[in-house]
Amino acid sequence: MHLWQILARARHLYPAAPAVVDGGQVFSWDAIGAGTDRLGAWLRARSVAPGDRVAALLPNSRVFLEAYFSAAGVGAILVPLNTRLHPEELAFILRDSGSRVLLADPLHAALTAEVLAHPTPVTHVLSAAAPFPLPTPWRVAAYPEGAAAGFTPEPTPPDAVAHLYYTSGTTGAPKGVMLTHRNVATHALAAVAELGLTDRDRWAHIAPMFHLADAWATFAITLVGGRHVMLPRFEAGAALALFEREGITVTNLVPTMLNLMVKHEDRSRHDYGSLRLILSGGAPIAPAVVRAIVQTFGAEYVQTYGMTETSPYLTLSLLKAHLRERSPEEQLRFRAKTGRPFIAVELRVVTDDGAPVRPDEREVGEIQVRGDTVTPGYWNRPEATAEAFTADGWFRTGDLAVLDDEGYVTIVDRRKDMIITGGEKVYSTEVEHVLYQHPAVLEAAVFGAPDPVWGEVVMAAVVPRPGMTPSEAELVEFCRGHLAGFKLPRAVRLLPDLPKTGSGKILKRVLR
Amino acid sequence: MHLWQILARARHLYPAAPAVVDGGQVFSWDAIGAGTDRLGAWLRARSVAPGDRVAALLPNSRVFLEAYFSAAGVGAILVPLNTRLHPEELAFILRDSGSRVLLADPLHAALTAEVLAHPTPVTHVLSAAAPFPLPTPWRVAAYPEGAAAGFTPEPTPPDAVAHLYYTSGTTGAPKGVMLTHRNVATHALAAVAELGLTDRDRWAHIAPMFHLADAWATFAITLVGGRHVMLPRFEAGAALALFEREGITVTNLVPTMLNLMVKHEDRSRHDYGSLRLILSGGAPIAPAVVRAIVQTFGAEYVQTYGMTETSPYLTLSLLKAHLRERSPEEQLRFRAKTGRPFIAVELRVVTDDGAPVRPDEREVGEIQVRGDTVTPGYWNRPEATAEAFTADGWFRTGDLAVLDDEGYVTIVDRRKDMIITGGEKVYSTEVEHVLYQHPAVLEAAVFGAPDPVWGEVVMAAVVPRPGMTPSEAELVEFCRGHLAGFKLPRAVRLLPDLPKTGSGKILKRVLR
Repeated sequence: MHLWQILARARHLYPAAPAVVDGGQVFSWDAIGAGTDRLGAWLRARSVAPGDRVAALLPNSRVFLEAYFSAAGVGAILVPLNTRLHPEELAFILRDSGSRVLLADPLHAALTAEVLAHPTPVTHVLSAAAPFPLPTPWRVAAYPEGAAAGFTPEPTPPDAVAHLYYTSGTTGAPKGVMLTHRNVATHALAAVAELGLTDRDRWAHIAPMFHLADAWATFAITLVGGRHVMLPRFEAGAALALFEREGITVTNLVPTMLNLMVKHEDRSRHDYGSLRLILSGGAPIAPAVVRAIVQTFGAEYVQTYGMTETSPYLTLSLLKAHLRERSPEEQLRFRAKTGRPFIAVELRVVTDDGAPVRPDEREVGEIQVRGDTVTPGYWNRPEATAEAFTADGWFRTGDLAVLDDEGYVTIVDRRKDMIITGGEKVYSTEVEHVLYQHPAVLEAAVFGAPDPVWGEVVMAAVVPRPGMTPSEAELVEFCRGHLAGFKLPRAVRLLPDLPKTGSGKILKRVLR
Repeated sequence: MHLWQILARARHLYPAAPAVVDGGQVFSWDAIGAGTDRLGAWLRARSVAPGDRVAALLPNSRVFLEAYFSAAGVGAILVPLNTRLHPEELAFILRDSGSRVLLADPLHAALTAEVLAHPTPVTHVLSAAAPFPLPTPWRVAAYPEGAAAGFTPEPTPPDAVAHLYYTSGTTGAPKGVMLTHRNVATHALAAVAELGLTDRDRWAHIAPMFHLADAWATFAITLVGGRHVMLPRFEAGAALALFEREGITVTNLVPTMLNLMVKHEDRSRHDYGSLRLILSGGAPIAPAVVRAIVQTFGAEYVQTYGMTETSPYLTLSLLKAHLRERSPEEQLRFRAKTGRPFIAVELRVVTDDGAPVRPDEREVGEIQVRGDTVTPGYWNRPEATAEAFTADGWFRTGDLAVLDDEGYVTIVDRRKDMIITGGEKVYSTEVEHVLYQHPAVLEAAVFGAPDPVWGEVVMAAVVPRPGMTPSEAELVEFCRGHLAGFKLPRAVRLLPDLPKTGSGKILKRVLR
């Protein structure tokens, strides 16, 4: 399936239905379709040909959604840019992808100017709204509005690349993950199947649309003719209010957002009756936060795990039928696991010698996957692509996990974040989950620091809750009540916040 | 996705869950998996290689389900045979497909013997149960049971052919419709998405598993880890009893079956509380029958339309969100339409010159479709394949339909069943729907007969309800109350039954 078809279906079946709510305005599928046609015609008039790259430095918005579909219409490759990257990193991505056109927004005018001060192949800058000033010689074009443009989509083969997502770069230089029309369309269909999405659903785009934790819903919600509600800038109180005001039924938030929302002072001020499903993804979450989410929203909670390279979902913690008959506490235990395989994915957990791990929740192996939602590789990086796959075509996630006898996996660490201290393996998430249970802890990150005697030692960084200042000794003592001696942090640093990627992943290399 | 994977998923996630109920026995996914491995190993030991054809002349059964997955495991092409065809037709199919192995069943022992009396390429016959005698030189092998065989599936590319379904042949010689792994797996995923299938669903295999009206559920229900309940021979009373006894939640029946069930004397004797969804497909249905279905079962009713060539679904009469707010009568009107496009399909209705019809429910055009569920063509029939597609790759269904402004199509006739009388077009279904409203009519078929003056004239064949004998004049008079003069049947024949294909389609060429 071609991504253009997903929009064509919504235009055909739901022309007058509310498609996008953005900044108090409501757009029908007719209006979104016309906007997409106009932007497609604009791109084509700038000689954007099939396979060309178009970059987008945009907040969550109607225009971002139109950009995704317009690029598909002209057969171009959309390159969604992370607005929290450094201008130099963004310029690198523009060069690496060879993007000639940049879709920008007045909200990021200063950042856009800084990016374009570096050498890039960009020749055209289009503003999502009114044109904004940029230093000479840049001229910004205004978003095409008004009369409908005639537009016929490019016939694009299903295995053509549709998107380049640059990985948030917890290590090394950003790499462009190629996702094809088939990758993204299969994920959309599979997500509809797994989550029971229908034309009655209203999705809140709160996590950034330049990241797949949210971007996949651009396609899945359009496929069923549902409604997109845009929040251009995350703020916990605003997100809580949006749930009630717009009758949101489903959304996928990153753990750091959820953590801030369920600890926000307004959390009990709203009615979340329309909300049927809260998905959490993009980073690991602590069980204590899961409990708070279920208490706050009273909606079904599903833990998701995925990667940019896999469009993204790999597992969901949806409960199998017979698990729904267990006690609430037991159900919550499964919901807080990483999850069982996503319906479009073949998944295995294997040890270093390729043997499947025992389903005993103890033996640790790497998660490897295959399927139509898996990337064909990295843009212009044949070596990195080759390294990412096993000889028999399984994608190596780099995530270490245990497996239970119900088929649910639980990630214990990123392969590279695993700490080896005195020959013992320590998985950072285990220690973090204990720290999150302490009442004074808002956020926690555990990582290894080099040590001449032990090889590595366990270190922790903690952001305390506002007004609280737990002592290092108190936190270590708390951990001692739950963990073996060699897993205890040697030191705990209190920080005002933790370094994060645009998608909310904690940057442990910066902490190190 | 490879079809083997669909079974592998159920085995992995639901090893101990009831997978198949067949003849009072319950089989777990572990047991079905082991049976599939054994059959796969048996086939491989007979040198069945990837791409080889394996034919199945089987009733609905555990073995039929295992045959579908075992063939996928060895990379062979399964050729499901219609048990109601003439032995000569079946021998033709065995020759046309080049099937070396025949899976048979004691239930069809006599038919199997008659088929093998004709020249065929068959070298091995396997019985689904105990071996049964066949004339010399045939020896029938017993279905492999007992100890688990080691079995590793063949790696098969997604575009490899998985099945050959011979079209039931309402015209001409049977043609083998090729369906690939991707065709069938995409349809399974899309059906899960459209119908909200989950591991709580229990599907009744009542329509024959050699026909896609039912066969698609073999894959979709397995994909979600649901339960398959087998009825080897259709009888209306037995089907009604099965619904209650096995707690069936969903099934797809052909209109002739539904018609017999809702008019059966036992229809009110059972509790259908578990039934959430009744699908009707494989042939057109009269609105009067739809009303009776909704009254009898109290479940959601969805009209389906599809073809063997499209895996099969093309439209579903699922209601869009805003239509669910209309009056019950208005909702029923939409539910009785052919439907709106299936989620995996791109669909258009075009006139002979390729222009889209107006969405006015009046202008008639042909339904043409594209997508991952559409066949690559007919087995060894390059000309028939070329004829079936337009120059730009749309599959011509040969079905004539009108379109409404909600995107729902209504089929008015098969292109070749349309009657032209005195230059006026008469769509047979319109006349049939009127006849079905008459209380004495059990079944009705309308067709054209050659006429020297008018070109063709409208003829009807009617099966009266038991104990009733409506007169020809009375039926024509009844039609006059609803139809224009040129649409009235010139003659109405009362028959004890109508000639039908194995899937329940009425054979109008025989009536002619």
